[in-house]
Amino acid sequence: MLKFEVHKREKNTMARLGLLQTSHGTIETPVFMPVGTQATVKAMTPDELKDIGAKIILSNTYHLYLRPGHELIEKAGGLHKFMSWNGSILTDSGGFQIFSLNKLRNISEDGVEFISHLDGSRHFIGPEENMRIQNALGADIIMAFDECVPYPADYDYVKNSMELTLKWAKRCKESHKRPDEQALFGIVQGGTYRDLREESARRTVDLDFPGYAIGGLSVGEEKELMYEVIEYTTPLLPFDKPRYLMGVGSPDALIEGVIRGIDMFDCVLPTRIARNGTVMTSHGKLVIRNAEYAEDFRPLDEECDCYACRNFSRAYIRHLFKAGEILAARLATIHNLYFLMKLMEKIRQAIKEDRLLEFRKEFFTKYGYVY
Amino acid sequence: MLKFEVHKREKNTMARLGLLQTSHGTIETPVFMPVGTQATVKAMTPDELKDIGAKIILSNTYHLYLRPGHELIEKAGGLHKFMSWNGSILTDSGGFQIFSLNKLRNISEDGVEFISHLDGSRHFIGPEENMRIQNALGADIIMAFDECVPYPADYDYVKNSMELTLKWAKRCKESHKRPDEQALFGIVQGGTYRDLREESARRTVDLDFPGYAIGGLSVGEEKELMYEVIEYTTPLLPFDKPRYLMGVGSPDALIEGVIRGIDMFDCVLPTRIARNGTVMTSHGKLVIRNAEYAEDFRPLDEECDCYACRNFSRAYIRHLFKAGEILAARLATIHNLYFLMKLMEKIRQAIKEDRLLEFRKEFFTKYGYVY
Repeated sequence: MLKFEVHKREKNTMARLGLLQTSHGTIETPVFMPVGTQATVKAMTPDELKDIGAKIILSNTYHLYLRPGHELIEKAGGLHKFMSWNGSILTDSGGFQIFSLNKLRNISEDGVEFISHLDGSRHFIGPEENMRIQNALGADIIMAFDECVPYPADYDYVKNSMELTLKWAKRCKESHKRPDEQALFGIVQGGTYRDLREESARRTVDLDFPGYAIGGLSVGEEKELMYEVIEYTTPLLPFDKPRYLMGVGSPDALIEGVIRGIDMFDCVLPTRIARNGTVMTSHGKLVIRNAEYAEDFRPLDEECDCYACRNFSRAYIRHLFKAGEILAARLATIHNLYFLMKLMEKIRQAIKEDRLLEFRKEFFTKYGYVY
Repeated sequence: MLKFEVHKREKNTMARLGLLQTSHGTIETPVFMPVGTQATVKAMTPDELKDIGAKIILSNTYHLYLRPGHELIEKAGGLHKFMSWNGSILTDSGGFQIFSLNKLRNISEDGVEFISHLDGSRHFIGPEENMRIQNALGADIIMAFDECVPYPADYDYVKNSMELTLKWAKRCKESHKRPDEQALFGIVQGGTYRDLREESARRTVDLDFPGYAIGGLSVGEEKELMYEVIEYTTPLLPFDKPRYLMGVGSPDALIEGVIRGIDMFDCVLPTRIARNGTVMTSHGKLVIRNAEYAEDFRPLDEECDCYACRNFSRAYIRHLFKAGEILAARLATIHNLYFLMKLMEKIRQAIKEDRLLEFRKEFFTKYGYVY
């Protein structure tokens, strides 16, 4: 079950405030979804995710299918129970990961044959197999199996791929066994070709899904080009359905995406850079290993009240990174996710007050963007 | 400041119940101290340590001296503040780590010259330098700088080493600058030679310290031999002072140590084996990576109510280990430390009820020891 309601449109942009309801809770949109690739948001417990305000997380079908296997997770009572997360979950289709395998896969009309990155074993997944896997995992929102084309790609390749994705979307819808419990979202493809994006949007909407994603962006193209694609795609999506921009999570892209009418985002960025020692602050990124922080006893971000910032100094966290301690990754991860959760809260507040463009300017000025 | 009071002796053994008071809190003894080598108990936050009932932790002078340096920690306001732990702390002297360097060190009457395992830089630490470092770190309990002899070692070597440790103990006491704030413990050495242990105990006690450790055990000798040494050493230590057995933390050795009159223990064992995927349970050790747990949806220990056992299955934790996830180390660490904290609680209860020998039998029968 999925309900979505837009309860406010911002005056000067395409941004909107919404409430997304699943059987695991109600989510205020626009929302950022932390990524828990292997049934865990790296370095975090479910309790900590709740503490920072996360209501919905994303998990990766490709990874879970290979390890520990969707049958095991089904036996465990589904993904929520397996990982002890009683908030909402969205699973991707695994398409992005499978198509990133490059030479290790073989596409046909039926589906994709690919070789596991873990043990070299051979696998085949088509739309029907994909739905079976996502039905077994049991997420609240599941994604149609699509081909994610790389950037750049020539027109004919993107057009043919879009046709394949549309056929697969239809087959996903037809083979989806738990439509009352799991909402299946369609995915708009079409690369950076406006006519293909528009055609993909129209024909995906014709298939009638409870939500729509924009896929195939943030794959190497310039950000300005990405924003342009979003800007001409969202108007073609139904106003009363959630819109999800896949794989995007930098602070600037979150703001720009919301301005162009996006409701949902996910990205490994905040958690991945955290483990490498880069934290987001209200004054831009900070590389904590740098020598300048060795005797800096201020928190990571003086305006932040996350657990890491309330209790530890830059000098201490730098020491933890230099010493290779697990707590380093934990504190930086908590901080970065909290930073994005707070950013989304501020964005929602700015929409409420019809001052999103002013907020963007204030945020970027401080964050260190010339805008 | 340090106060210690024995408020109950067990009827059938040398075990006792005590209260150890530092300016950072009151600790019920016998107590197990989790080890936070590099100013963090690996994989744990200070809040989590508090949650599992830890009141005192140990940190390593050798590691902190090399990185981030005791001056930095002093500037941060001391170790408690640096790591955001407001419970009690004991720092070892670093002797054990320095003498474990083998060929990288050179002992003289003055002290030890050694080469850092981190960057090959040369260092010299004698008793005076050691006190300066531990005074800067600011732990509630600090340890005299001793030579920890390997096992086996011949009589003359151990005798000479004992003499050196006694001279250094005196010099530590004389150069200790914060005796009102930090309690300096003496360390009994003497290897496994009864006359040397007895002489070391008598002459260390003559120097008059607020607490005494038994060092140089659990370094390769048979456990029965270790128990024997403890058994003839503790009666020579003052009844009204805390007794600390260094580097010991297996469940069986904790029980046997308490029976022989030990009040304090520390060991990296529970946290180290946790990160390798071995957990302690009431039915013995469990290697969670084993295939037999792949579809085992029970908690690590069905009698445990730690955070890991309340929320996650063996199958899930096994998956986390196989997938190399940080949460694996976190959950196993929480569980193992909680297991030892609960064990010490049960030991204290058994002392209270004068049934420690019965408790030992019950525990070992279940844990899988023939006893």
